[in-house]
Parts: sequence; C-alpha cells; structure tokens
Amino acid sequence: LTVDEDVESRIRAIRNDKTHGASWLSMSALDVLKVIAEEAPAGSSMQLLNTLREKAKRLIEVRPSMAPIANSVARLIHEAEAAGPIPLDSLRKAIAEKADEIVDESRISVNGAAENVSKLIEADGTIITCSYSSTVFEALILRPDIRVIVAESRPLFEGRLLAKRLAEHGLRATLIADAAMAAFINDADAAVVGADSVLADGSIVNKVGTRLLALAANDVGVRFYAATETSKFDARSLLGRAPVLEEGDPSEVAEEVRGVEIRNPYFEVTPARLITAVVTELGPMDVHMIVSQMEEMSRYVEPLLR
Amino acid sequence: LTVDEDVESRIRAIRNDKTHGASWLSMSALDVLKVIAEEAPAGSSMQLLNTLREKAKRLIEVRPSMAPIANSVARLIHEAEAAGPIPLDSLRKAIAEKADEIVDESRISVNGAAENVSKLIEADGTIITCSYSSTVFEALILRPDIRVIVAESRPLFEGRLLAKRLAEHGLRATLIADAAMAAFINDADAAVVGADSVLADGSIVNKVGTRLLALAANDVGVRFYAATETSKFDARSLLGRAPVLEEGDPSEVAEEVRGVEIRNPYFEVTPARLITAVVTELGPMDVHMIVSQMEEMSRYVEPLLR
Repeated sequence: LTVDEDVESRIRAIRNDKTHGASWLSMSALDVLKVIAEEAPAGSSMQLLNTLREKAKRLIEVRPSMAPIANSVARLIHEAEAAGPIPLDSLRKAIAEKADEIVDESRISVNGAAENVSKLIEADGTIITCSYSSTVFEALILRPDIRVIVAESRPLFEGRLLAKRLAEHGLRATLIADAAMAAFINDADAAVVGADSVLADGSIVNKVGTRLLALAANDVGVRFYAATETSKFDARSLLGRAPVLEEGDPSEVAEEVRGVEIRNPYFEVTPARLITAVVTELGPMDVHMIVSQMEEMSRYVEPLLR
Repeated sequence: LTVDEDVESRIRAIRNDKTHGASWLSMSALDVLKVIAEEAPAGSSMQLLNTLREKAKRLIEVRPSMAPIANSVARLIHEAEAAGPIPLDSLRKAIAEKADEIVDESRISVNGAAENVSKLIEADGTIITCSYSSTVFEALILRPDIRVIVAESRPLFEGRLLAKRLAEHGLRATLIADAAMAAFINDADAAVVGADSVLADGSIVNKVGTRLLALAANDVGVRFYAATETSKFDARSLLGRAPVLEEGDPSEVAEEVRGVEIRNPYFEVTPARLITAVVTELGPMDVHMIVSQMEEMSRYVEPLLR
C-alpha cells in the first residue's frame, strides 16, 4: 500500500461512513492530513503543502454537508501555511503537532458546550431529545438528577443507544417512538438537540425529527436548545451557499415495496425562530454572535473553497 | 359453548384487538349484540333488552377510547327500546335487522366522508398522511391522479401497508420515516389524517404522529384535514369527560433495555386550532356544527353511560 493508496482508502471510508457524526469524522479527516504530513513523499515544503491542500479539498468535497470537516482541515492548512517557509522535516512535525492540537481543542470545546448546556437544566428537570449527539450526551451525563425522554430516531434507532448509555450513567431514561414526541412534550422542561451544522441565519442542520421536536416544543412554550461547538458553524453559509442535506439508503427505511418510492433524508433545517439558543463552548449564542464567529472562521475556510 | 360464553369470548376479542380501527371494532360490537338478539335465552322482550343493555355497557367499557363503539351500540339499544312493547320474536328480528342497517349506514358514511375529502384535493396534488385510516384510504383511491407521502407510523408500521395499497390502486406513493414528516411538508398541498374520535372542542384523537404532522403543516400554511364519520364523534366529551388514550405494549417499540423505561402511547389529541376542517359524510364541519351533531347523538349515548 503506497501512502496515497492508504490516504485514498481513508477518504473513501469517510465518504461512506454513515454511522459517525460530523465531529468524529472531522477528527478522521485530520488524521488523514496527519498521515500525509508524516509520510507522503514530497520534494519540498511547498510540494507537501500542495498535496495537503489538494487532499483537504477532497475531504471537504466527499462530505459536503459536514461543516466540521471543512473547518478542521481548513484550520490545519491555514496554520501550516502560516508557519512560513520552514524546512520540510520541520513542517512535517509542525503539521502533525498542530493536528493533535486541533483534536485536543475540539475535545475541550465539546466539554465546554456540554457544561454550558448542563447549566441551563433545572434540578430534577426533564429533557426531551432526538437522535444521538455526543455533545448532548456529554451535557446530560453531567446531570444524573434529571430524566431524559429519548425519541428512538428512525431509521437507524440511534436514540436506543443514547437511552441505554444515559441509563448506564444513572439517569432516568424513557425511550419513545419518534411519532410520540408531541405526546410527551408537556412532560419536558426543555428540549435539547445537537447540530450537525449551524448556518449564518441562526438555523441548524440536524437529523430529521429535529424540526418536529422544535415545533412541538414551541407550540407549548418549552425551551428548545441546540447544543454544539463553534466548529460546527458552517462558514460557507455566509456566502449564501445552501446546506447540502445528505440522503441515506432507502433500504434503511423499508424493504422494497412494489410501486412505492422510499425516501430517507438524514438531515433537515430547523429555523432560528424555533431555537431558544444555540449553546456552544462560548455559551448561549444569538444570530449576531453566530455570524461574528463565522466571519472569523471564514478567513481560513474560504480559500479552500475556491 | 353457551351463548353467553360465545358473547364473552367475542367481547374479550374486541378488548384485545390492537390491529383494527374503531369503525371495524364497532361493527364487531354490533355483531355481538346481534348474536344476543338472535340467540340469547330470554323469557320476555324486557329481559332480552336488559341483557342487551348490560352487554352494550360492557362493550363500551372494554374500549373506552373508541367513540364509534359507544355510538353504534347505544344507537342500536335506542332503536330497540323505541320499538316499543312488541313480542319477543319480533323484537329479536327487529334488532338483528337494525344492526345490519347501522352497519350499512356506516359504510355509506365512510363513502360519503371519503368523497367529501377527495373533493378538497386539487388535480395532480400531493397529500401527506400518517398511520392508516380506512376513510383516508377510501378518499385517496378516488383520486388516482395524486401523489401521497406516507409516514411509516411506528411502532407497527401501518403506513407501509397504506403506501403499498395506494400503489396497488395506481397512485404515486412515497414512504418516509415519521421523523421526516417536516422535511417533506413543503412537497404537500394538504395533510389528510383520520380520526379515532372527535371531541366537543373540535379536537381529534388519533394515532401519535398526527399532532406533529399538524404542527408541521400549520407552520408552513399547508391545510390539515381530519377525515372521519360522525359516528366517531365522542358525545361523552360534551359532558367534559377527557378522552381515554390507550397505550400499547412497550415491546412494540423496542426490546427491553436495561434501566430504560419504554413508553408506547397509541393516541394523542390534536387541537382544533391546528385543524383546517373535520370532514365527514356531512361535509367539512366547524366546531359549532360538531357540537350540534354531538348533542343529537348524546340523546341515546348518554343513558348507557349511567
């Protein structure tokens, strides 16, 4: 296996991975760039940077819906270029270290967002959620006093796993069908969901079911929080680019039914008007704060989109 | 098997039947009374009427959430009593005939409601629905020109069957997960659902998922119709009685998960403010019309509730 074959097989794995969330995949994407930095043949620093930039663009393209991939790899490329003209071996080492640093920062961000979310939940309160967001999970297990109502999250039932893990951490967990979210909304003090990305208008892209839960919560005055890291902010939406909403294999919804079209969208947009706050490592954020942060980030993301 | 044993086993079957809808079960309930009318030992017309009244109350009690059962059996008892003092044999015959008449009328009502609903759908339009309502099915197959988006309706997936049957009738059918209802709402010209019962405040009781669909529809200005017969009107709600919302077996939602409570509510209330119209065999009805009709029906239902 050449380095390039290894790299290409890792990129394919990221393209085909429908199990892990955007944060996890952005770590995998950084790993790919780290492998290139450490092992890819290169005659000069310039050549290595070119290879990195090219593969970074590929990584962004294979999962266009995942802002954290774009943010992480763009951030790494930006830092590598900012290192200036240094010898090839120093550059290889500097990039590998920087990749590890970004991974560490990402963990710190998740913990920070989780902590900020957990502070918004009252003592012995009840939270309702759908799908399985790592950030939401981290937030909830900081609060073993609460009860969590979890929608199973068809088609892949990741809500079942979340309910199981919450129970393992001592929380009271209740599992329901997605269709029953409105039937339980009055039991909840707040709804908390993750976000696969946050857009420049303050809306979020997240697993289907999120918008239904937001509508149910708003209808009865239950607060609706999106728990996420600023690394999920989609700077591309600043440029008016519409989010790409991935669709899964129809067979996940049902076996073929003669004459019936089966559709399996994974993601949907939940508008800002239904969101009480986007809660990140920086705290609860409104649309203005989101846009400022995004403008900052777009400085290094934008060059990679050309 | 004595007649009473046969009758009791039929009542148990109605109690345990989680497959059929309220209309179907109300026909079964009428069958039970017909068996009694034709075969139950009785010394006099009065004695037969007493037996019928007692079993009618049992039938209402075993499925308290199902207004059509109360309406059908109460109607039959009312007609039997209205027949006046006639010989036992004539009474037996009159009741059996009346039971058949009520069944026939019920079929005519379903057809009428279906026709009235079908007229509200524009040419080549797209309808979104959840669960499997016979009335909705009858309405949709009158319109082979339309496309229907069907939510699968967990936990028992009755939406899959509806999509299959619609396709067999030549309609374009699209099957989606319940969680994806908001993601498809903008594709629809109207949402149409059935109703297990209609309450005096104009709200409907229907399968969970209905309220989420109503919220999604209202959020984007898509019309939301409840298709049903007046036999589903719950006259008991006139007396302020809250609807009984049946809950199914948790194992239908998921296998046991250690430490996790699993809940499986079948029904939920969707408030009148989210419903464009309740469409029955009498046409689209508003709350005022619903209450007038219910007051009429309560004349014969109310005595059986004492």
